Amino acid sequence: MSQTAYQAVVATFTRIYRYEHLGSLAGWDQAAMMPSKGNDARGAAMAELGVLIHNTLTDPALAELIKGAEAEDLSAAEQASLREIKRQWEHANLLPASLVEAKTLVGSHCSHEWRTQRQNNDWQGFLANFREVVRLSREEAQLLAKETGLSPYESLLNKYEPGMSCAELDRIFGDVKSWLPGLIRQAMEKQATEQVIAATGPFAVEKQRALGLDVMALLGFDFEGGRLDVSNHPFCGGVPEDVRITTRYREDDFMQSMMGIVHETGHARYEQSLPRETVALPVGRARSMGIHESQSLSFEMQLGRNPAFLALISPLVKKHLGDQPAFEAANLAKMYTRVHPDFIRVDADELTYPAHVILRYEIERALIDGEIEADDVPALWDEKMQAYLGVDTKGNFKNGCLQDIHWTDGAFGYFPSYTLGAMYAAQYFATIRKQQPDLDERIAAGDLAPIFNWLNANIWSQASQWETGELVRRATGEPLNPAHFRKHLEQRYLA
Amino acid sequence: MSQTAYQAVVATFTRIYRYEHLGSLAGWDQAAMMPSKGNDARGAAMAELGVLIHNTLTDPALAELIKGAEAEDLSAAEQASLREIKRQWEHANLLPASLVEAKTLVGSHCSHEWRTQRQNNDWQGFLANFREVVRLSREEAQLLAKETGLSPYESLLNKYEPGMSCAELDRIFGDVKSWLPGLIRQAMEKQATEQVIAATGPFAVEKQRALGLDVMALLGFDFEGGRLDVSNHPFCGGVPEDVRITTRYREDDFMQSMMGIVHETGHARYEQSLPRETVALPVGRARSMGIHESQSLSFEMQLGRNPAFLALISPLVKKHLGDQPAFEAANLAKMYTRVHPDFIRVDADELTYPAHVILRYEIERALIDGEIEADDVPALWDEKMQAYLGVDTKGNFKNGCLQDIHWTDGAFGYFPSYTLGAMYAAQYFATIRKQQPDLDERIAAGDLAPIFNWLNANIWSQASQWETGELVRRATGEPLNPAHFRKHLEQRYLA
Repeated sequence: MSQTAYQAVVATFTRIYRYEHLGSLAGWDQAAMMPSKGNDARGAAMAELGVLIHNTLTDPALAELIKGAEAEDLSAAEQASLREIKRQWEHANLLPASLVEAKTLVGSHCSHEWRTQRQNNDWQGFLANFREVVRLSREEAQLLAKETGLSPYESLLNKYEPGMSCAELDRIFGDVKSWLPGLIRQAMEKQATEQVIAATGPFAVEKQRALGLDVMALLGFDFEGGRLDVSNHPFCGGVPEDVRITTRYREDDFMQSMMGIVHETGHARYEQSLPRETVALPVGRARSMGIHESQSLSFEMQLGRNPAFLALISPLVKKHLGDQPAFEAANLAKMYTRVHPDFIRVDADELTYPAHVILRYEIERALIDGEIEADDVPALWDEKMQAYLGVDTKGNFKNGCLQDIHWTDGAFGYFPSYTLGAMYAAQYFATIRKQQPDLDERIAAGDLAPIFNWLNANIWSQASQWETGELVRRATGEPLNPAHFRKHLEQRYLA
Repeated sequence: MSQTAYQAVVATFTRIYRYEHLGSLAGWDQAAMMPSKGNDARGAAMAELGVLIHNTLTDPALAELIKGAEAEDLSAAEQASLREIKRQWEHANLLPASLVEAKTLVGSHCSHEWRTQRQNNDWQGFLANFREVVRLSREEAQLLAKETGLSPYESLLNKYEPGMSCAELDRIFGDVKSWLPGLIRQAMEKQATEQVIAATGPFAVEKQRALGLDVMALLGFDFEGGRLDVSNHPFCGGVPEDVRITTRYREDDFMQSMMGIVHETGHARYEQSLPRETVALPVGRARSMGIHESQSLSFEMQLGRNPAFLALISPLVKKHLGDQPAFEAANLAKMYTRVHPDFIRVDADELTYPAHVILRYEIERALIDGEIEADDVPALWDEKMQAYLGVDTKGNFKNGCLQDIHWTDGAFGYFPSYTLGAMYAAQYFATIRKQQPDLDERIAAGDLAPIFNWLNANIWSQASQWETGELVRRATGEPLNPAHFRKHLEQRYLA
């Protein structure tokens, strides 16, 4: 029996999945295990794998096979699979190899120097490299825009959040901007008179790790299909069959490592629960960056900072870190919902975080669409930080526009995913609460099944079967609606 | 400037080196890190990489390039490089893909079932699979023999120890057989009246690990270019730029983990010291399995079980495991030189180990050359165990001919490497002692530089520049000479 074109395409993408397995492992190891002298050889090996995958995706024979598959009589599931295959294939084929290579080189150089330049608050030094990154990212965006019919910035945004438009982002983020500053002010006023008991450290790394493992178990992490390790920047990596999450520990602060683990466990359960039959194919993978973030934020924000959940794990915190007044449930809830506008996005609280994201969205969009130049970024950054959060960043590049890695290698279009994820998560939980009005009582009693079952049925098991908008409509009965996010924040921070 | 054929060949083998980097990392992770559910995906990814490397090596364009390079005007170093490239290339091209695939499948199946069959002492169950492994290994050996002009068994032996002949092995092992049984007997008689103080455990894993790390540092392991982890079967893996060694810990016995770490550190320093300029090419890699084993056994046997070295590390043992009479230098030396003929090769002492290897050599050679059949193995095993070590293995397959993994997937020809390595190591140290008559005093004083400098100058830095025989002659002034091994054993066990 001869193979159909569709079957041949599936075989090629299965091969690519296996190559990617090796790349994913190499990336995890580089961050979590590798000693410093291994870096050059690792970089060369990973680049070689990148070339191999790119060559596989741009092989003219594959283009013919995909064309052939499109002409075949495919089931609905196969059509969805081919749609996702084409998305990945097009992304690899729309850009000339010379541009991809130039952007990789310039981006890698800019990222590398940024680490030192940020330490030294050296905006001028950074700018020299950054102008090149912007130039090549614009070139990429314009080429993609020509093919896709989207705007240049939208074309980059769609790499991470397929189907999202600037019009929709403007609508959503415009809505948030209309109420967020007021909400932040009110929350801070309310918290001004609140007593929060600080936890007394140090907290030994081994004890924090044991607490983290207990929390992961409570959250359903499958330890036969994954691990917890340490890296400078926490992430969720590996492959769906073997998910590797990381955290970092500070002996003077247990809060970050614990909630970081909750966050990464959300990513991990999504990966661990993707349907195994299609896991090697694009249609069987996570839907988008925004949906991925909606899982980590369902865990971290909707569940993790919920007073009911903190009541549930308060005994675990006491068990591992010792009994102290700070670890009482009500105090933990106060610690994890403290609002404080500040410089750094990754350290921001739930309420001020969206302001950091919207600021970046507005700047990167103007940058890619050519409305501003790289040189204009610091002034605009300061203006928006003043307006949204009342924070003065003048001359403070280190804790201002030099704080994130994303732009250094040209990952423009990624930032919106964070706040889209927070909004999707709020919308999921509004739906879950309708089905399960006593959700908080269930959580406090340790019954997290209503949450996991809903996420599994509506998100995890669906993988990339549907476009993002359709996935969200099927799950919640309506398109993305920021009203749920607002209501969630008002209830948590003003009630 | 256009590329020469030699340069094009080098570029291809550099690419293969980068692929192998990913495979090596995946193998290390599988043994040391991977949770169980990751195994299928890992196996598929590693097999896909194997196909990729095989396809790269058997690409007809590469054959043309190698032919072209042979016709070019190459330097002596390039000629040596091309010789090693051709060795690897021929190995991949001499066998039909169908045979390689069949052997991999049958071997993997036999290995997998062997794990249970060994537990159950199930020789008959094993035999059904093993006959197929033998059949395909003979086919492989005959095909190789036709091309190489060697005997079938020699063709397999040469995969691991290029240049070694059965005539030379017979001469060397024949010599050993003439004096080893007598030496074992004499050593046991001498030790019969010796008092050895047993160490009192338990020894916490973390303490054993800390001791191991201290010993590795003493032995010059570069922790910026490698790691120590845990696996069921200790090994040295990774890549020269990032060497990963493993050990296993038993809380009731510190001896195995500590000396296992010394052994693997010998492998590791060889890899870490290979010259970086040629590390991506076959000529820049370790010379052979026998030479690799000569490094681990230089560390474990020549240095590690030397009373002077045990005196040097006795304070470290006490520091980590607590002060007890067993840890006095003289007692450690007795513990680590205790002679006891027994069933299991991997647990054997230095003196009885060669008997285990010679037995396997004689059986596997007869098997591959068709003088005996798979069915004959247990009887022959028992006969030889009785003759060489006085151990009765009748009906005890589990601790007899089913104990090793090597034959289960057809790695015939590997076993001699172990004892060749022990002999090379004895010959190196005879040479070092000539240059450095006060070597033991130096060792006891913590000055290991004479050993490392000699190994680096004569073995590590030479990589695969010379054929094995030439390497040994250049290093020691004579071909492999088992008299040094005998003298070493007599001095250690009878003096």
